[in-house]
Amino acid sequence: MGCIQSFRQCCDQPKNTNVRISLPAVCFVWQLAMIILFGFFIRYNAESDVHWKQENKNISRSDIENDFYFRYPSFQDVHVMIFVGFGFLMTFLKRYSFGAVGFNLLIAAFGLQWALLMQGWFHSLDPMDGKIKIGVESMINADFCVASCLIAYGAVLGKVSPVQLMVMTLFGVTLYAVEEYIILNLIHARDAGGSMVIHTFGAYYGLSISWMLYRPNLDKRLNGSVYHSDVFAMIGTLFLWMFWPSFNSAISYHGDGQHRAAINTYLSLAATVLTTVAISSLSQKAGKLDMVHIQNSTLAGGVAVGTAAEFMLMPYGSLIVGFCCGIISTLGYIYLTPFMEKYLKIQDTCGIHNLHAMPGVIGGIVGAITAAAASEGVYGKEGLKTVFDFTGKWENMLPTQQGGHQAAGLCVALCFGIGGGILVGCVLRLPIWGDAPDDHCFDDELYWEVPEDEESIPPILEYDNHIRNQAGCKNN
Amino acid sequence: MGCIQSFRQCCDQPKNTNVRISLPAVCFVWQLAMIILFGFFIRYNAESDVHWKQENKNISRSDIENDFYFRYPSFQDVHVMIFVGFGFLMTFLKRYSFGAVGFNLLIAAFGLQWALLMQGWFHSLDPMDGKIKIGVESMINADFCVASCLIAYGAVLGKVSPVQLMVMTLFGVTLYAVEEYIILNLIHARDAGGSMVIHTFGAYYGLSISWMLYRPNLDKRLNGSVYHSDVFAMIGTLFLWMFWPSFNSAISYHGDGQHRAAINTYLSLAATVLTTVAISSLSQKAGKLDMVHIQNSTLAGGVAVGTAAEFMLMPYGSLIVGFCCGIISTLGYIYLTPFMEKYLKIQDTCGIHNLHAMPGVIGGIVGAITAAAASEGVYGKEGLKTVFDFTGKWENMLPTQQGGHQAAGLCVALCFGIGGGILVGCVLRLPIWGDAPDDHCFDDELYWEVPEDEESIPPILEYDNHIRNQAGCKNN
Amino acid sequence: MGCIQSFRQCCDQPKNTNVRISLPAVCFVWQLAMIILFGFFIRYNAESDVHWKQENKNISRSDIENDFYFRYPSFQDVHVMIFVGFGFLMTFLKRYSFGAVGFNLLIAAFGLQWALLMQGWFHSLDPMDGKIKIGVESMINADFCVASCLIAYGAVLGKVSPVQLMVMTLFGVTLYAVEEYIILNLIHARDAGGSMVIHTFGAYYGLSISWMLYRPNLDKRLNGSVYHSDVFAMIGTLFLWMFWPSFNSAISYHGDGQHRAAINTYLSLAATVLTTVAISSLSQKAGKLDMVHIQNSTLAGGVAVGTAAEFMLMPYGSLIVGFCCGIISTLGYIYLTPFMEKYLKIQDTCGIHNLHAMPGVIGGIVGAITAAAASEGVYGKEGLKTVFDFTGKWENMLPTQQGGHQAAGLCVALCFGIGGGILVGCVLRLPIWGDAPDDHCFDDELYWEVPEDEESIPPILEYDNHIRNQAGCKNN
Repeated sequence: MGCIQSFRQCCDQPKNTNVRISLPAVCFVWQLAMIILFGFFIRYNAESDVHWKQENKNISRSDIENDFYFRYPSFQDVHVMIFVGFGFLMTFLKRYSFGAVGFNLLIAAFGLQWALLMQGWFHSLDPMDGKIKIGVESMINADFCVASCLIAYGAVLGKVSPVQLMVMTLFGVTLYAVEEYIILNLIHARDAGGSMVIHTFGAYYGLSISWMLYRPNLDKRLNGSVYHSDVFAMIGTLFLWMFWPSFNSAISYHGDGQHRAAINTYLSLAATVLTTVAISSLSQKAGKLDMVHIQNSTLAGGVAVGTAAEFMLMPYGSLIVGFCCGIISTLGYIYLTPFMEKYLKIQDTCGIHNLHAMPGVIGGIVGAITAAAASEGVYGKEGLKTVFDFTGKWENMLPTQQGGHQAAGLCVALCFGIGGGILVGCVLRLPIWGDAPDDHCFDDELYWEVPEDEESIPPILEYDNHIRNQAGCKNN
Repeated sequence: MGCIQSFRQCCDQPKNTNVRISLPAVCFVWQLAMIILFGFFIRYNAESDVHWKQENKNISRSDIENDFYFRYPSFQDVHVMIFVGFGFLMTFLKRYSFGAVGFNLLIAAFGLQWALLMQGWFHSLDPMDGKIKIGVESMINADFCVASCLIAYGAVLGKVSPVQLMVMTLFGVTLYAVEEYIILNLIHARDAGGSMVIHTFGAYYGLSISWMLYRPNLDKRLNGSVYHSDVFAMIGTLFLWMFWPSFNSAISYHGDGQHRAAINTYLSLAATVLTTVAISSLSQKAGKLDMVHIQNSTLAGGVAVGTAAEFMLMPYGSLIVGFCCGIISTLGYIYLTPFMEKYLKIQDTCGIHNLHAMPGVIGGIVGAITAAAASEGVYGKEGLKTVFDFTGKWENMLPTQQGGHQAAGLCVALCFGIGGGILVGCVLRLPIWGDAPDDHCFDDELYWEVPEDEESIPPILEYDNHIRNQAGCKNN
Repeated sequence: MGCIQSFRQCCDQPKNTNVRISLPAVCFVWQLAMIILFGFFIRYNAESDVHWKQENKNISRSDIENDFYFRYPSFQDVHVMIFVGFGFLMTFLKRYSFGAVGFNLLIAAFGLQWALLMQGWFHSLDPMDGKIKIGVESMINADFCVASCLIAYGAVLGKVSPVQLMVMTLFGVTLYAVEEYIILNLIHARDAGGSMVIHTFGAYYGLSISWMLYRPNLDKRLNGSVYHSDVFAMIGTLFLWMFWPSFNSAISYHGDGQHRAAINTYLSLAATVLTTVAISSLSQKAGKLDMVHIQNSTLAGGVAVGTAAEFMLMPYGSLIVGFCCGIISTLGYIYLTPFMEKYLKIQDTCGIHNLHAMPGVIGGIVGAITAAAASEGVYGKEGLKTVFDFTGKWENMLPTQQGGHQAAGLCVALCFGIGGGILVGCVLRLPIWGDAPDDHCFDDELYWEVPEDEESIPPILEYDNHIRNQAGCKNN
């Protein structure tokens, strides 16, 4: 700790937020690198390659059985969650809406390219020609990977420069790909909606970075909402809420897998809304609701049902998960966020600990329990095989064992999140990234050309009256 | 009437809008009840159950023929209409945007759970085990059911407490399920897009409640829009407008049924826009357009084509329906809404009489006429059977008879709407629900922690100038 | 030029913006004309007709193979782009948000009806009965056609009356249908995403009209954004950005065609974001980003990859296209737009030259090169046939020839855009359309009933304090 503190002081130099050299340099260099790496490594997979149609005729398969038609609608919903959902959810700050949607777009656009490569090397490298073969499922997985970086962005929103965000995303995607490979392939845990892989990892990654970048003298004048910025944030909330069933079902197995994942998520989210409203109302003197809770905690049920969504969780099981998460997440906003800032020195702008970290961990635990409790009576022999992928070298695995593997997966996600976050946080403390001084955080002025204020709109009443008179003369 | 008036006076006591006990209590109790009832009654249906895949292999059916792939994209569009469409459409009030999107989410999240149960008992109870089996079609139907309650919310927007809304939704969903069962199953009317079942019922339910809750001294200072709130409302309008083809086609029969319903709705809505603009412009001295009309009346064509959408209405038929509804709905806003408030004592905040009630009734009539005019020449023998479901005990029904049944269905919807609304309105007049006093309606302050105003954003110009100078020195 | 100038002066009379007669008249007459023409000409196609199901049984085809299930999700995404995407992208002006979304809706609703007719006569006239048969693909094509008119609207945004817009759309759709027929059918160029047919044509059509309607004394006080209007515009940007893969893949051939088009667009857009950010930051003294660039130039990659999206462009090829377009489009905003206004007398409100014209031309060229470079080694014999539709009288065509045809198609689009725009611009200069005077452009006041300003919201603090005290007494 002492060592970290002294490193912190060493990095605390006067800030220069001019990113005119660093930001373009990073963008150009990384995009050029992407082009070169894509040229060497990335090709279309069988279902998006021009030979598919011919091959199709040979085995008299219908065009509609292309994976595109199974997954593309879900992909588009996930895409909306990434760009509009996460982007607008973060516009709640009174003067950081440009940064919220703009940097969100920047991070995601870079991250998904790097994710296609990283995930490709681990998951879809064709041993025949050493190329990564991509299709619609790769795009969904890239969006998922980017989601974890955007979650992390929520913790440091308003306090970092776009260059820092790009660095954070580069490392975040890299760590994610490794962690995902370990959890899904080596440990053989299942995680369709990414409670562990995406949410737990992303949230602890962001929180650790925020801890490393702790600002004791943070000016909070702009760390709050105004009326319209809260309404903008509700756009983000609602698109996340509505499309979460697609998120959790996007890469489930075809047929009943996707179907069941969507139903479970739909139900869990509905239950979360009611308990969030209840706790939010209880927490205020006059029983008034707090927009922060409605914007965030209503989504916790979607996070927590992620791992178990494709299991036979049962509709009432989903409701129970949602019920608990609404309570825990809202209480987190009321008690835990102030506590963490005061005593743990973690400044969590969007409260991702309450929306992603805790529900993510709960999701991992629910997944482990549901897996361990799976029985041949409920699933059938074939069902167990399909749902838990007991094939290949995992053929003789038992559901109870699978439960243990799920728990192990959760631990890996936690370790990667916390460990990776601390390391990357060290890098981001270097005084070369152009981040904001403590008294100008949460302000778009630093990185954006901000237009004049609304009050300056000139009144053009004379002409309007002129028109009215004109019309009055003619038509009355 | 006298009796009602005296009941009204009896209920008019000083208001206490503190819902700190009642709102959490209602949310917790009802959500717990849902969990218990779901535990007893609700299970996955065959297509979302884990055994589906196995069964699939046995009959060599492709995974893509799971109902999920037929209906999930439409479901997601309907979901967007319910949460973003209805929610943002109601943000037009200058100080009730939190209540509009927030309570909309609360009502919908509770309503859909109760709807799954109520509709399940009537429509999808498995006689073998007494369980309700749910799948993607159940989710769409639950969303449909909730839509009727959200329409009713439009009439009382800004004048009721969240507790009243929960009560209103509980009864609304219950009435809806009964009415739907009578109309679709007992009377055997067809109503794919719910002109009668959803819109007519929901609108008259809301209007009757609003009549029962009439406030003679309503303060209208906040009953109006500001510039940005009108733009927010257009988000709602557009998502409703765009996704209405999915709404009307979501539960049509597979194949040409869904295809045709989408085309008819697409065309009807397009025609509505033009006549709405025309009448709106005609109604103002200088030919200016009124945002209220554009936000609402442009949607009337979608309502009115609901019942007949899957029939062979013909493209020009859809245009005619849209043409008429644009005119009638806009005229309703201009003449009928003030009349209803003044003489009928019905205060209709969103003008749902013009957007849902009248177009809904028109839709029912159009459906009856189109059904009665159906001929074997146009539909073919098989076509009639498929479209009007002339199977089982309805095998020998004739299209003209079907027309009569459609008309009967419309009457049932009207009766349930008006009758149910009056009864529920009585309940809601009880002075225990925490509703707003007459002079503080349409104000988020009552039930929400509202952030400070925009004017209070501190100007941070000095630093910005500092940055500019810095940059100027370095780069110029 | 002299002739045009004198014609201009002749048309410059005092403006009367009252459209109370002309706007309703145009709407009513045109909508009635649509109904009559639809009655004579338009019927359901085989896949949306009631006989499809029967026919289906005869050849034991699954319901899911209805074209509806291949294209409807893409159609809905395109629909969102047209109405929310284009509509909200144009709300960036501080006082023209009503005009942006409202007139966008009006243009699109009229245009799509006329497009169904015009495109139907050219493309889907049934020779048996002389009727146009429509289905989901017709709806997508109608939306595409309307897109070109909305692009043109971007150039004249804030400077024309709704009546002028209706006239512009009538001619625009007509020209589009002819141009599309020449390019796709006569010349046999391929253009899945419409780089040439939609974007190049639409942009030059709008720019030419803007040139004809040049206003030397244009008052620019309202030609700028405020903070919240920029956030609204980001809604448009993001929905365009996210759904562009659906736009480019919507009418590609089933299976790998749609799959590949979506992947290429996804990648191209991602690359564009990074280079846009880079150039935008480089262009400002302190390295700050400009919202205009982020709102617009990030989309250029989607335009430019339109033609080649379904070809074997390869993932790295898509990245390269996006890389270049982000640079060119952003540089266009910085240098070209001011130049065009000053020296070419083209006032381009939304900068469509940078977003649609240049990227559209680049897209045409990329398409030509990619087609010319197509080899049997990459595509396979069958692949070439499928992708480039080398069937019928084009059976013996070679890829190199196809490259030439692509280039010819681009020229046709340019000619139709510029020529058509000049002609229609002449018509629109007539002083009968009710357009705005130079000093009241970009102002919603002229054509909309604008609500009072936000500052006028009365403070209701006393009551709130009252409530707080009440609550305090009770609960503390």
